Amino acid sequence: MAESKAIVKLIEALSHLPGVGPKSARRMTYFLLERDREGARDISVAITEAIEKVGHCQQCNNLTEYDICEICSSKSRDSKKLCIVETPAELQSIEQASIFRGLYFVLMGHLSPLDGIGPEELGIDKLEVLLDNGEVDEVVLATNLTVEGEATAHYISELVRKKGILATRIAHGVPVGGELEYIDRNTLTEAFTGRRQM
Amino acid sequence: MAESKAIVKLIEALSHLPGVGPKSARRMTYFLLERDREGARDISVAITEAIEKVGHCQQCNNLTEYDICEICSSKSRDSKKLCIVETPAELQSIEQASIFRGLYFVLMGHLSPLDGIGPEELGIDKLEVLLDNGEVDEVVLATNLTVEGEATAHYISELVRKKGILATRIAHGVPVGGELEYIDRNTLTEAFTGRRQM
Repeated sequence: MAESKAIVKLIEALSHLPGVGPKSARRMTYFLLERDREGARDISVAITEAIEKVGHCQQCNNLTEYDICEICSSKSRDSKKLCIVETPAELQSIEQASIFRGLYFVLMGHLSPLDGIGPEELGIDKLEVLLDNGEVDEVVLATNLTVEGEATAHYISELVRKKGILATRIAHGVPVGGELEYIDRNTLTEAFTGRRQM
Repeated sequence: MAESKAIVKLIEALSHLPGVGPKSARRMTYFLLERDREGARDISVAITEAIEKVGHCQQCNNLTEYDICEICSSKSRDSKKLCIVETPAELQSIEQASIFRGLYFVLMGHLSPLDGIGPEELGIDKLEVLLDNGEVDEVVLATNLTVEGEATAHYISELVRKKGILATRIAHGVPVGGELEYIDRNTLTEAFTGRRQM
């Protein structure tokens, strides 16, 4: 006997979450409908609100509810240091480790010529505008330590150096192949402390 | 720097899902906002629809979009066999195994005197109405093989026998594919006690 259509639809929708397969999605669905309809409604409302309210910072691409995010508009941050990351989630990991007090620029990805992602797609022109205003004296490259992340860091470091600005790379304290979002704060701290000139 | 309020709220809401801690919830949140806003909207809509449409079958308590669920209203099911389960999710597991073609009754829990859950809370009166209409000749007790599930099965079996109806219990034993080395001693005891001639 097939399950109710609304149940099947919910199972399918939840299966799109990262780390959630059809079995977990079914478990979640029955849990919500049997035991936590209030919680289910909270999720639905929170998703709708987040989608409506959260966009990208016009300066750094971080996720924010404002035009300019709280980091870019903060006066207590060191605007001489600019950290380049691939995604907002990775920016957040660095923030939680409390090891960097400068500003960020989020690439929203990495160079990947085979997928048609070049400098333009990563908004490198927007980054150049930031660098050309003359405040930044160091760019910390915190892209992932994957092949694509390294290539992206290398590309940007050349561009940065041409402008007479110091380019540094976070240290290989982070395991090769690792993604910043899942690294513990101590390793992240080591990586920031050990950054080297490129 | 704190995350956007809408992001924090979504992380908290997702943390209520079974098997999802704060870290997975954060990962899901950023995944949805960065990469799959369409999928996020699907989840929100599917939850709202499921909450609105899906209720309990008036006869068996299964989750359904109708007054009487598709199993109870099917003419191809054997209405002489009635299977008792604790939850709609467990009913669905049995359906997916395609091993039972009778009807169900979902208790929505198990007897648990300490939590104030007695026969009334489990809708045993509703079950009695079903049994008293004279069609059922066997009640299969498929409550969980936990202490509470066993107590519940025992309680219902007495009630069923008093009405002159056969009460059966699903078999205890070693799971298919199970290796004896890793089976707990209670299960092994049950497996030996319940051994059958080959």
